[in-house]
Amino acid sequence: MQSLKSVEIIDSGKAILLNLKDGGKIRYHSSWLRDNSLDPETRNPNNGQKIISLNNLPKNISIDSVYFDKKRKQIAVKFLPEKKEIFFSLNWLESYAYDNKKNKDNGCIDSDLKIWNQNTIKKIPTFNYSSITKNKNLFLKCLKSVYVYGFAKIKGGKIKRGALIELANLFGYIRETNYGKLFDVKSKINAINLAYTNLGLNLHTDNPYRDPVPTIQILYCLENSVSGGESIVADGFYAAKILKEKHSKYFDLLTKYNVSFEFKGDKNIFLKSNRPIIELSPMGKIIAIRFNERSIAPVTEVPFELMDDFYAAYRTFSDIIYDPKLSIKFKLNPGESFVIDNTRVLHARSSFKGKGNRWLQGCYVDKDAILSKISILSD
Amino acid sequence: MQSLKSVEIIDSGKAILLNLKDGGKIRYHSSWLRDNSLDPETRNPNNGQKIISLNNLPKNISIDSVYFDKKRKQIAVKFLPEKKEIFFSLNWLESYAYDNKKNKDNGCIDSDLKIWNQNTIKKIPTFNYSSITKNKNLFLKCLKSVYVYGFAKIKGGKIKRGALIELANLFGYIRETNYGKLFDVKSKINAINLAYTNLGLNLHTDNPYRDPVPTIQILYCLENSVSGGESIVADGFYAAKILKEKHSKYFDLLTKYNVSFEFKGDKNIFLKSNRPIIELSPMGKIIAIRFNERSIAPVTEVPFELMDDFYAAYRTFSDIIYDPKLSIKFKLNPGESFVIDNTRVLHARSSFKGKGNRWLQGCYVDKDAILSKISILSD
Repeated sequence: MQSLKSVEIIDSGKAILLNLKDGGKIRYHSSWLRDNSLDPETRNPNNGQKIISLNNLPKNISIDSVYFDKKRKQIAVKFLPEKKEIFFSLNWLESYAYDNKKNKDNGCIDSDLKIWNQNTIKKIPTFNYSSITKNKNLFLKCLKSVYVYGFAKIKGGKIKRGALIELANLFGYIRETNYGKLFDVKSKINAINLAYTNLGLNLHTDNPYRDPVPTIQILYCLENSVSGGESIVADGFYAAKILKEKHSKYFDLLTKYNVSFEFKGDKNIFLKSNRPIIELSPMGKIIAIRFNERSIAPVTEVPFELMDDFYAAYRTFSDIIYDPKLSIKFKLNPGESFVIDNTRVLHARSSFKGKGNRWLQGCYVDKDAILSKISILSD
Repeated sequence: MQSLKSVEIIDSGKAILLNLKDGGKIRYHSSWLRDNSLDPETRNPNNGQKIISLNNLPKNISIDSVYFDKKRKQIAVKFLPEKKEIFFSLNWLESYAYDNKKNKDNGCIDSDLKIWNQNTIKKIPTFNYSSITKNKNLFLKCLKSVYVYGFAKIKGGKIKRGALIELANLFGYIRETNYGKLFDVKSKINAINLAYTNLGLNLHTDNPYRDPVPTIQILYCLENSVSGGESIVADGFYAAKILKEKHSKYFDLLTKYNVSFEFKGDKNIFLKSNRPIIELSPMGKIIAIRFNERSIAPVTEVPFELMDDFYAAYRTFSDIIYDPKLSIKFKLNPGESFVIDNTRVLHARSSFKGKGNRWLQGCYVDKDAILSKISILSD
């Protein structure tokens, strides 16, 4: 924290005010400070879990005294009615400051993320499999690429059925589904899913008919000697931001109404979910894109009066998504794979033909483990 | 559908109007009808997936003619400019009607769900393990109990380590986490999680620091010869509805601001997520509760001016949740388990002591498979 000039009680003990040497001022409420106290009676020192309930605390918490303890280099706060003194480091206070700090960012993209298109990403973020297994810094870079761009390409993997699982285990835990722990993406006769044909597949996110949707998808190439069969990826958050800037009314329609997605796999599977095409956090950040023209069900949530506009919005969004300037295209070779944030990055493949074979294996993983690994490795 | 009187083109071909014999009127847009056509060139007849993109369709879709085909008992719609004739059954049209049908329900609880408290649920929904494995109707009832109430108790299971997995496989796919495919809930020294002690645990949802949060939790009892160690469950959606009715401003605060949840398990785990305590769909329905006083991090998203109100809201919500009139309490015996919707139903345990042991095993499963099974078995 910038150097502290002084600290004082304000609002009749309901808050404290830190006066910084540069003139900055930061306030903290008495109830907030007490609730977040770091003493062993409030928070378990071993695992950091809180061991009090809010309703174990008095309702009329106020501050009796506050001063900077020079020896400890911490701020000492004495709470009433408990008469309990708690110390807070300036660093801790700074990292959790909420006064005049947040809520300034009104953009629709979380500031930790970088949105991209074909021009801005320049080079496809590519990592060597054996390097990321050996070098923690490279692995961290790879994890951050998945987190920040929603995408990373991995090369140099084994050309072996199931090698995907070893790769997936680096990132997190495999989310098994009705497609299995891993699934083969090959042409089949009478395919239960169009993915299992040689047709091109437009840009889409996977399994929007599943709730929770799989958050990470890995597609791993074992054979690709066909003509065509290229992979295409595009940043759905970028597309949504374009929509918001060009047609904010359309953006609003795609965020404010749920649609249904459905998949009838065989007689034992009928998955469905009801979620918006563009999902916002309550704070207005885009947190998920669900876009899959194969599995969207008839839209019934939108009132008759708005349905024409909704269709125009959906069409405009799909035009933005399918604009070739947005996406990057590459052909996966055997032993190569890509890892995408399936809540954000759309993927596609071009149709293929010829005598050769195209054989990819895919699986889903969840993002929570990736974030955890980034935190641990960044420390 | 109620009997059809007539069908006509309206809005210069932009929509059709069904006049029903009871005086009811239902409209459908030309673009909506064309997009949702059921012919094999629009939708794959094998798997039901759509095989056209919206931008494969002309922009100026209108209706050239419409009539009721008495032989087929379907409505025939001819679209321009394609000059394509498509048939729609009245049943299909009724099931996907969007005109004046939806959006009437302004409640915050999805109409498929039934909220409950101690008085309204009367009897704990309990199912026998071997019965649900043999009797499809009973199994469907059990699945519906999990879906509609977010809760079911299962008795008569094997008293055997890992028997939980067989039970879990009935409901869906296990979501593996850092806690394992299944985890033991036993008292431990230096527990990484307070769940692994003999302390009471207040009502909470599990793992709100994980995104996506586990949607179903199963807790399975292998031993419970201690004094205490009872299980308690409460409907978080009911609690949220009470909050909305009593203090709509407080409800709004808990839905409009994200908070962070964190868990530092050991040196290899640091999970965190940033989500609201009460999550609403964009259409205003409550879709998830995240309530865990042990893992909530200092709240930094709320502006200084609203923090006192936010704390009051959080405290009021926790008072509602902890009201003993809300929850049901029971002691799991060996071979008994409960299945809860972890996005909705909070669970707790009372502290325990005595010479005996308390040994539960737990795991997470995802809800998508449960919904699919309900659809399939209901057919």
